[in-house]
Amino acid sequence: MTLSAGSAIGILGGGQLGRMLAGAAAKLGFDVHIYCPGPGTPAARAATSHWDFAYEDRDALAKFARACDVVTVEFENVPVDAARAVEAAGTPFRPGPKALEVAQDRVAEKTYFDAIGIAVAPWRAIGSLADLRAGVAEIGPDTILKTRREGYDGKGQVRLRPGTDLAGAWAAVGEQPSILEAVVDFELEVSAIVARRPDGARVSWEPSRNVHSGGILRSARVPAPIEPATRMRAVEAGVHLAESLEYVGVLALELFVMPDGTLLANEFAPRVHNSGHWTPEACHTGQFENHIRAIAGWPLGAATRFHDAEMINLIGEDALADPAELADGVSLTLYGKREARAGRKMGHVVKVLQPGAGRS
Amino acid sequence: MTLSAGSAIGILGGGQLGRMLAGAAAKLGFDVHIYCPGPGTPAARAATSHWDFAYEDRDALAKFARACDVVTVEFENVPVDAARAVEAAGTPFRPGPKALEVAQDRVAEKTYFDAIGIAVAPWRAIGSLADLRAGVAEIGPDTILKTRREGYDGKGQVRLRPGTDLAGAWAAVGEQPSILEAVVDFELEVSAIVARRPDGARVSWEPSRNVHSGGILRSARVPAPIEPATRMRAVEAGVHLAESLEYVGVLALELFVMPDGTLLANEFAPRVHNSGHWTPEACHTGQFENHIRAIAGWPLGAATRFHDAEMINLIGEDALADPAELADGVSLTLYGKREARAGRKMGHVVKVLQPGAGRS
Repeated sequence: MTLSAGSAIGILGGGQLGRMLAGAAAKLGFDVHIYCPGPGTPAARAATSHWDFAYEDRDALAKFARACDVVTVEFENVPVDAARAVEAAGTPFRPGPKALEVAQDRVAEKTYFDAIGIAVAPWRAIGSLADLRAGVAEIGPDTILKTRREGYDGKGQVRLRPGTDLAGAWAAVGEQPSILEAVVDFELEVSAIVARRPDGARVSWEPSRNVHSGGILRSARVPAPIEPATRMRAVEAGVHLAESLEYVGVLALELFVMPDGTLLANEFAPRVHNSGHWTPEACHTGQFENHIRAIAGWPLGAATRFHDAEMINLIGEDALADPAELADGVSLTLYGKREARAGRKMGHVVKVLQPGAGRS
Repeated sequence: MTLSAGSAIGILGGGQLGRMLAGAAAKLGFDVHIYCPGPGTPAARAATSHWDFAYEDRDALAKFARACDVVTVEFENVPVDAARAVEAAGTPFRPGPKALEVAQDRVAEKTYFDAIGIAVAPWRAIGSLADLRAGVAEIGPDTILKTRREGYDGKGQVRLRPGTDLAGAWAAVGEQPSILEAVVDFELEVSAIVARRPDGARVSWEPSRNVHSGGILRSARVPAPIEPATRMRAVEAGVHLAESLEYVGVLALELFVMPDGTLLANEFAPRVHNSGHWTPEACHTGQFENHIRAIAGWPLGAATRFHDAEMINLIGEDALADPAELADGVSLTLYGKREARAGRKMGHVVKVLQPGAGRS
């Protein structure tokens, strides 16, 4: 399926990723319909129309789907049933429910990585305090306990160390089905971002070095200080994941680079990703535009990088600084959020560090 | 006045320039309200809200103005009274009614160029067939007769040559107040695009070489094949015009480059301009974003050019070609117009000819 010019693209979710996808879609001449409960979300305020209904409203979803030529998502915790309702109405849902299902459950995700041969740190599924005690005994005290579902930007997680009270940790995650992951002593974190079309054609951006703090991405920088062979293997892992899932659109695979150069997958996002926010400024084609091109069945744009660049998130109160100050000498993107809460991503800046220094 | 983050920007006009301005404003976190009579215009479909009222509706204009923190235009033939109604409601109108007044009347425009010392080809104001006969006698038979008001992309114009029936030409422009302009034998056409803030700070993009055919811009290319001194004088003319008008926002001055390197102004646009559509792809900051920054009172982004580039318009039936074909290897922008009429601008492509070859 190739969308004709002027078709309508539906997006489930109304956050900043939806807003930036809507901008990329508008550039390509598409109408954009945002499906998101609640008024005045960032994406809904920069799109053709807003469907303010619950993700459980099957009738509204069916009507929405029929108003769109293709539907996609901007956050991975959209209920899989909503994606199925879109498909049931006869409208393609991209990337497809499978990718959502895998990404929504950390145990399913790690199981999938294992199955397709993408290396990960030791992990155990945890369903009880007894599981937790056994897991810590097996993969060590330096671990992170995370709920299987939901949770992002460091929420729903407990860091375990030698001597941590395991019953307390189990209570802290609400005694929900969880995963225990070994903490690995990595050199740095990178992400491989890949765009794939329905026919399998794909492009990859150069992996950025990502810096997290407090569980939240703070910055992403290219080039990452890694060997060419490591860079190639990171890209290959992202491509392998996209191929395995028969994925359509953009996905991001977060990887730990170990001191010996080996890679361990952390998690993937079945959507455009914060660590790719430098791509529109620094590359021939950015992640938002290529996601739209991919789901539309259009040719992908080159992911060639033109410049060395750094993306820095504006988080919480950071973004209350005078935007007129922030805007000088950098590319500024603000998400139009009304309220700056602690830890809330309000915008980002991209600094072109070295014009024309890319690997084109 | 400096707009705070999340403010609302109003745009009079609903065409592709408004659509691209809306995209730039959304990137900076602003809401965008489009005022434009008629449903489903390109800009209205990519903005926060659409005000579908006539430009003569003073009440609607006042309400619109009060819903916005600043109001601007995306085409120069918005009635000046509409701009005044915005100001009367207490909302800044940028660039200001004066620039609109001058740009809407070709005689006022040429008179203004004369007054501020920007050279133009010989011209005469024409109010009657007798004026036309006298004008042709004075500035020669090789001339163009244009209506003073309205008319764009070659409409409302008659080319006069030796032996042209002047009564017929006068009838062809509807016997409306007109201007007679000498046709000059220029080497090439360039445009100087300037962004200026309320405090006078400004940036200029490098002039592009513009190619017209049938009165319609076909392409714009940087670098233009002109001497550095000529380039500098073109930029200076644009800056001088912006300063003289105490202009706020982006304007474009079209100039003829004569065989001896001198410049003659053709006309200016009190808005972002088709010949600057290569700037978002090839420069640190594009014309749309800097127009928004300027009217918001924010710092301007650098206009530094990174790449050699060419912008090619997709006109009329051109754009009915499969967009999937057009999208490969170039940056594609489509305007979301429902119907491709002859001569109608449907979109444009930008080719990066030489990455990193800019004058940064």
